[in-house]
Amino acid sequence: MNNLPLIGLGIATKSESGQTLDTFFPLIVFKGGEEKYDQCFDDWNALMSEDVIEVKDPLLLNLQDDDLSDSIDHLNDNQALILCRISDNKSIENTEEAYLKLHLISYKYFVPNSLNLENLFGHLVNVAWTNQGPIELEGIEKKILSAKKKNQLLEINSIDKFPCLTDYIIPPGVRIADSSRVRLGAYLSEGTTVMHEGFVNFNAGTLGPAMIEGRISAGVVVGKNSDLGGGCSTMGTLSGGNNIKISVGENCLLGANSGLGIPIGDNCIVEAGLYVTGGSKVTKYNAQNEPELVIKASELAGQDNLLFIRNSQNGAIEAKVNPKSIELNESLHKN
Amino acid sequence: MNNLPLIGLGIATKSESGQTLDTFFPLIVFKGGEEKYDQCFDDWNALMSEDVIEVKDPLLLNLQDDDLSDSIDHLNDNQALILCRISDNKSIENTEEAYLKLHLISYKYFVPNSLNLENLFGHLVNVAWTNQGPIELEGIEKKILSAKKKNQLLEINSIDKFPCLTDYIIPPGVRIADSSRVRLGAYLSEGTTVMHEGFVNFNAGTLGPAMIEGRISAGVVVGKNSDLGGGCSTMGTLSGGNNIKISVGENCLLGANSGLGIPIGDNCIVEAGLYVTGGSKVTKYNAQNEPELVIKASELAGQDNLLFIRNSQNGAIEAKVNPKSIELNESLHKN
Amino acid sequence: MNNLPLIGLGIATKSESGQTLDTFFPLIVFKGGEEKYDQCFDDWNALMSEDVIEVKDPLLLNLQDDDLSDSIDHLNDNQALILCRISDNKSIENTEEAYLKLHLISYKYFVPNSLNLENLFGHLVNVAWTNQGPIELEGIEKKILSAKKKNQLLEINSIDKFPCLTDYIIPPGVRIADSSRVRLGAYLSEGTTVMHEGFVNFNAGTLGPAMIEGRISAGVVVGKNSDLGGGCSTMGTLSGGNNIKISVGENCLLGANSGLGIPIGDNCIVEAGLYVTGGSKVTKYNAQNEPELVIKASELAGQDNLLFIRNSQNGAIEAKVNPKSIELNESLHKN
Repeated sequence: MNNLPLIGLGIATKSESGQTLDTFFPLIVFKGGEEKYDQCFDDWNALMSEDVIEVKDPLLLNLQDDDLSDSIDHLNDNQALILCRISDNKSIENTEEAYLKLHLISYKYFVPNSLNLENLFGHLVNVAWTNQGPIELEGIEKKILSAKKKNQLLEINSIDKFPCLTDYIIPPGVRIADSSRVRLGAYLSEGTTVMHEGFVNFNAGTLGPAMIEGRISAGVVVGKNSDLGGGCSTMGTLSGGNNIKISVGENCLLGANSGLGIPIGDNCIVEAGLYVTGGSKVTKYNAQNEPELVIKASELAGQDNLLFIRNSQNGAIEAKVNPKSIELNESLHKN
Repeated sequence: MNNLPLIGLGIATKSESGQTLDTFFPLIVFKGGEEKYDQCFDDWNALMSEDVIEVKDPLLLNLQDDDLSDSIDHLNDNQALILCRISDNKSIENTEEAYLKLHLISYKYFVPNSLNLENLFGHLVNVAWTNQGPIELEGIEKKILSAKKKNQLLEINSIDKFPCLTDYIIPPGVRIADSSRVRLGAYLSEGTTVMHEGFVNFNAGTLGPAMIEGRISAGVVVGKNSDLGGGCSTMGTLSGGNNIKISVGENCLLGANSGLGIPIGDNCIVEAGLYVTGGSKVTKYNAQNEPELVIKASELAGQDNLLFIRNSQNGAIEAKVNPKSIELNESLHKN
Repeated sequence: MNNLPLIGLGIATKSESGQTLDTFFPLIVFKGGEEKYDQCFDDWNALMSEDVIEVKDPLLLNLQDDDLSDSIDHLNDNQALILCRISDNKSIENTEEAYLKLHLISYKYFVPNSLNLENLFGHLVNVAWTNQGPIELEGIEKKILSAKKKNQLLEINSIDKFPCLTDYIIPPGVRIADSSRVRLGAYLSEGTTVMHEGFVNFNAGTLGPAMIEGRISAGVVVGKNSDLGGGCSTMGTLSGGNNIKISVGENCLLGANSGLGIPIGDNCIVEAGLYVTGGSKVTKYNAQNEPELVIKASELAGQDNLLFIRNSQNGAIEAKVNPKSIELNESLHKN
């Protein structure tokens, strides 16, 4: 976990009208950070009269990293070298800062829900993400037509405010079977496998090795050694009416096609196909496997060692004491 | 809503044997349509002895649009400039007409289920959609091998009769997180966001702003301000035995991993994880929240203000009067 | 069904450090196999002092196929021409053999679960699958940065041990709407359509025409004329705790968002939205539609003509005699 203030060195892609479409931050330096870059923060900070500046001459950066120096030298016409500083954890004020915060989470400098992401949507531009990089949407029809004529396909992979994580950052020790399913801003810990049906939104992710074949909504965090089965859902807070941030503890299993509308603790199982919403009335069993009381699922929030099932003979949702402990298949996680 | 007759100006991609693989229609003109093109229909109509003709000399088209004129000039060897006319809403007779009808829906000239799409499957060719454009399947192995040798990957994104919408048309004011999930022939209204887990088939779509994280099957239409939760299903009529076209009214919410086998009216909710099929027996509640009668879900088709849940204590599917009204998160829909 | 021994002729992609990242086998020859190649096995076998050898001079292969000869001549610096022999069905010993076994299944020389795939995960390398082909993960950040500078996007489609099927093999008579959802090692029979929400893992697939809109887990086999509805799940054995290999018989329908934790016979239906796990207690009905007994679903494994539903009034899972027979929509399967 790092601290503010920090400065990101970014390459911004500009639209024809000069709007910033995205910014890639190959390097972020912290005040009092890593030795290799310990001078950078103070040097760069001295250059900055504002929180975002364009750097016309890369030599001013005093970069010791040759690869990086080479890469930021002689940028293309539609690119700009910028510095973006974050001193306080306040709401987002521009596109560069929005991208910097998403990078901070995906580089794992900050865990999900620790950065202020207010105004994020407002400062992200809806962009066509193509095989030719990010392109502004205005006039895109002409570009499709013109590519067609040259017998080149303009492949538009996505039209979205968020790009794919892997266009910018490859977290170490992960597998991502379909990179279009993980957004920049995802937090993926070593040993995480995101399968084809898995999905990880921004400001969300895994805190350790995990098998993700279901959907991690924005704000949702999954503990180590947990397994989200194929097509399972973690209820999000951005749309659909849910207000409680979901989290999954360690050593948990959400069965295939299950769903979770409450945060759960460690060593819990939700049976395949069962959706536990906060309002579900649940029969709680004791350690002797006797029914104890009926309560709302939301009252079980955060508890450990629960097994949620729907009784297959009478349709009641039950929370029993979980007798099993979950183990990830190690051969799948040596990434 | 537009009217027939109309003529599409198309660029067809041809296979080596001369078969039409796809046709892109950058312009469609209507008899008595927009001023800019009001002469086009009559001029072009006069050229057409048949409903599909190849145009050898683009100058014959008298096009006033310079961008378009430039783009159709000097096409590639595997491309042909064509005109395709539709005078009556009859069944489809050739590949060009099939593509034209899909374009008509995606340009939102015609709403889903208003065009005659009989024989659509028969006239669409199964094509390899690649980073080099559409390629015929015959002999594709050689092309894979030959690309490999040149250290170029022939990326085959899809082998299908339908291409992606965004290879041809970018509807204004939408977000499509994963463009491979929306087929040409989808009808997407301004303010629609199709998330990664969303899917929109041909002849289907949204009539206003909408959050689509579930699957809109062929023929299914979703009203404005409705929210299809992650992984939810709208039962289709092409396979699986269902014969009733599903629709979703305005201000509805289909919860995550839910499913819908009946059409519903406005202001309805289907609880997360619940699949309501036409044959489900449902306990209908009155406005005083008292159980009234048990009926088949199909008898509730099209009704407003229903909340479908499965009782979490006795497993019965219930239809209550919906107390909530749905609101989309505005910040997500300013696309 | 073919027999061992066999030899694959492969083009291996090498990392900078010389590690094999993948191997593409355009040709596999069997001892006593097809006439065209009947000499190849013996000729090549004579060259092989070990089970994997590099072939420095392609002329040694005596290839009669001109297309293939051309393609393996003058390979790139990061490619090697290799022969890989499998004599016994033993566990996997190297990356080339791992790829060869995956090819053997996808070419349909061997049905799923007939080849010994022990140590498969250990011998597959986690690779970045990009628009520039397979790239090793070490140092990938530099490549992203360097591509950015050249205004070329390095598109990383996947970071995984398994590549997409269609990068190597296009099975005849299939449609695959989103090729990123079918792994090399999938077994797809003619007449199979894998829709956007479908997924097919390695060592798994279809034995005849089929509509696949759900997920076929590793080891799972689906009989001819069966229909896996949108988002349905077949429980896998690699993670999540299930140990029984699932299979689906002929003429079956798994409804949308349903799930299957037991193998089923022919002519079975699982209702949309219902997850049948092995441990579910099921009320079994007789042919007169009277409840007979309550048993665990796992005891119904492999039986024909069952209709699984959850009673919508009392929540009990029921297995009735299936009155319907499933028919695939023919127009969807003329691929």
